[in-house]
Amino acid sequence: MIAIAPPRVSDRHRIHAPDLDMPPRLLLGPGPSNAHPRVLQAMGLRQVGHLDPSFLELMNQVQELLRYVWQTENQLTIPVSGTGSAAMEATLANTVEPGDVVLVGVNGYFGLRLIDMAKRYGADTRSIQKPWGQAFDLSELRTAMEEHRPAILALVHAETSTGARQPLEGVSELCREFDCLLLLDTVTSMGGVPLFLDEWGVDMAYSGSQKCLSCPPGIAPLTLGDRAVEKLLRRKTPVANWYLDMSLVSQYWGGERTYHHTAPINMNYGLYMALKLIAEEGLEARWQRHQETADRLWSGLEEMGLSCYVDRDIRLPSLTTVCIPDGVDGKAIARRLLTEYNIEVAGGLGELGGKVWRIGLMGFNSRRENVTLLLAALRQVLSEA
Amino acid sequence: MIAIAPPRVSDRHRIHAPDLDMPPRLLLGPGPSNAHPRVLQAMGLRQVGHLDPSFLELMNQVQELLRYVWQTENQLTIPVSGTGSAAMEATLANTVEPGDVVLVGVNGYFGLRLIDMAKRYGADTRSIQKPWGQAFDLSELRTAMEEHRPAILALVHAETSTGARQPLEGVSELCREFDCLLLLDTVTSMGGVPLFLDEWGVDMAYSGSQKCLSCPPGIAPLTLGDRAVEKLLRRKTPVANWYLDMSLVSQYWGGERTYHHTAPINMNYGLYMALKLIAEEGLEARWQRHQETADRLWSGLEEMGLSCYVDRDIRLPSLTTVCIPDGVDGKAIARRLLTEYNIEVAGGLGELGGKVWRIGLMGFNSRRENVTLLLAALRQVLSEA
Repeated sequence: MIAIAPPRVSDRHRIHAPDLDMPPRLLLGPGPSNAHPRVLQAMGLRQVGHLDPSFLELMNQVQELLRYVWQTENQLTIPVSGTGSAAMEATLANTVEPGDVVLVGVNGYFGLRLIDMAKRYGADTRSIQKPWGQAFDLSELRTAMEEHRPAILALVHAETSTGARQPLEGVSELCREFDCLLLLDTVTSMGGVPLFLDEWGVDMAYSGSQKCLSCPPGIAPLTLGDRAVEKLLRRKTPVANWYLDMSLVSQYWGGERTYHHTAPINMNYGLYMALKLIAEEGLEARWQRHQETADRLWSGLEEMGLSCYVDRDIRLPSLTTVCIPDGVDGKAIARRLLTEYNIEVAGGLGELGGKVWRIGLMGFNSRRENVTLLLAALRQVLSEA
Repeated sequence: MIAIAPPRVSDRHRIHAPDLDMPPRLLLGPGPSNAHPRVLQAMGLRQVGHLDPSFLELMNQVQELLRYVWQTENQLTIPVSGTGSAAMEATLANTVEPGDVVLVGVNGYFGLRLIDMAKRYGADTRSIQKPWGQAFDLSELRTAMEEHRPAILALVHAETSTGARQPLEGVSELCREFDCLLLLDTVTSMGGVPLFLDEWGVDMAYSGSQKCLSCPPGIAPLTLGDRAVEKLLRRKTPVANWYLDMSLVSQYWGGERTYHHTAPINMNYGLYMALKLIAEEGLEARWQRHQETADRLWSGLEEMGLSCYVDRDIRLPSLTTVCIPDGVDGKAIARRLLTEYNIEVAGGLGELGGKVWRIGLMGFNSRRENVTLLLAALRQVLSEA
């Protein structure tokens, strides 16, 4: 090559960047929720390398704690190096082969996302529909299974777009009867709502770190049971996604410790601390805390004459959708809560856009004082609207 | 559904997790390098939501600063919510359509990875080979272009496995002559080695946060120029990867701010601070610092009778491969540096396994005192071997 004088550096985009001074928000929307202060502390620790013996030990502990929170024995239980959507895609990318029938229960936004993703891996996608905010019952699922004979049934345990919980009792027996894998979205339930992956016969699940786990977003739990791993190993085609290829990633998280990609060290620190806090609190206590805080919110809303969108028996304690009263500008109310009270709540997504607010009480944020503040602020802002 | 008593929680995986107490490593391997202390501070800040006005403003600033560090005007310049490998895959996933010829320059490990990834998106992959540690010259590239007529030429600017720099002068003219997109791996050069994406006519590039940018791993710069975006928009098939689909992701980073996935808030804080520090230092000063620190290392190694694997004219200041002398157990030396001195250096990858050590002096770690310590510790350990 001919040596040429290097070009001159342009300062056009060398902006004067101010110090980070973010507003002190209370995140009571559908996520992210505020991370626990001890998790934030862990995020800022000095790193070690991704093959350091001390990090490999931490990885083992993260895996063990994920198994506890999910109540599973699955060997392949790891945090994916991305957000919840990456872990969601990982379940499908690894187990769907072109032409596989994937049946998705669509009763909210994230069912639709599962369909979009499954299609990209060549799935023959089918759906069973239910109005947003409702759950499927076993007979509806049986009818759909008989019609579609899927290789994978995908359900959303906790629909972040609606606040509805999908009961799982009996679903696993149905899936085994039809020799079908059960895939479960647990993004808004893990660590906040009773969840028993093995008891419920769930073959694959994913979650996010920024909901009931109280860790910042950027790392996402994933688990594949034996039947899912078998399907992965039996593939005729390679996984059509390098980054999320669990036949490679599991060699780093498994005994070989083979380098795949550089693990997000500090996100793993944060997740470790978040899981450690759950183990210290205990799942039963944590689930009860979420339920009690939610009950308090629901009573308060009722007292204000506001109604919840989802029936109480399948209403998630972690996420409540509140009907926006007629004549009220829902967006304006949310904006005032944010700008005047530093409280984030969200509007509806998809079909529920403009119809509901979404209020999350997740993990560290599931505390009495947050309910009291939110109700008082909401009452004030509504009275002035 | 029939109400059934919930299962009992198993405490089998409820391990007693100790406090995080990681060893104080000096990370002088091929990455991650130590994050700057102000970056670590930023990582631990309390979050805002991913649609908070304050976060949207931060996103704009991150994009501007990425353009500065890469010296590009590309509109689609964003951090991917994953590690460098995810950004690498994003370049291919978005622009490769089944049957496209992708020509990859393979002179190290990451060229091979590009081939693996491109294949998963249906590319007709071809390669031009060169011994590891060497660079391609323009006539070699021209011959390969004439033979393969690729839609995309992928080169690695800074091979993390070898420490060699690929000169780029004249390559862009060649790519335009053959109507081919130029894809560049800048993982180990961005922020540490002269890099002028627009001057060099690079159409797509990616990097990692944990090398010369001095941010922890978990977020990864990506840029697509107009010609690459055009190819993306002209696609006949949807992008076969939902998480990395830039036609969706760019709507969140662009004007619409449409929700795609929850951005990793704290990783963005860290990256913002890392980029801010680069803008404050200035690219020219930073590049010069990296060169001077590397020169100091190279002289010291020479004085000890050790030789570098890569010719000086294409040797990266950010990463040096050092030949392991005959009869020396390279792994044992690295292990002693780690356990006795808390210094991480790495062995060779792939073809260079067992033949070299890899020593990184990246970003915040590119400082005189680190060279002095490493040389002294290495001298001591070698003398006792």
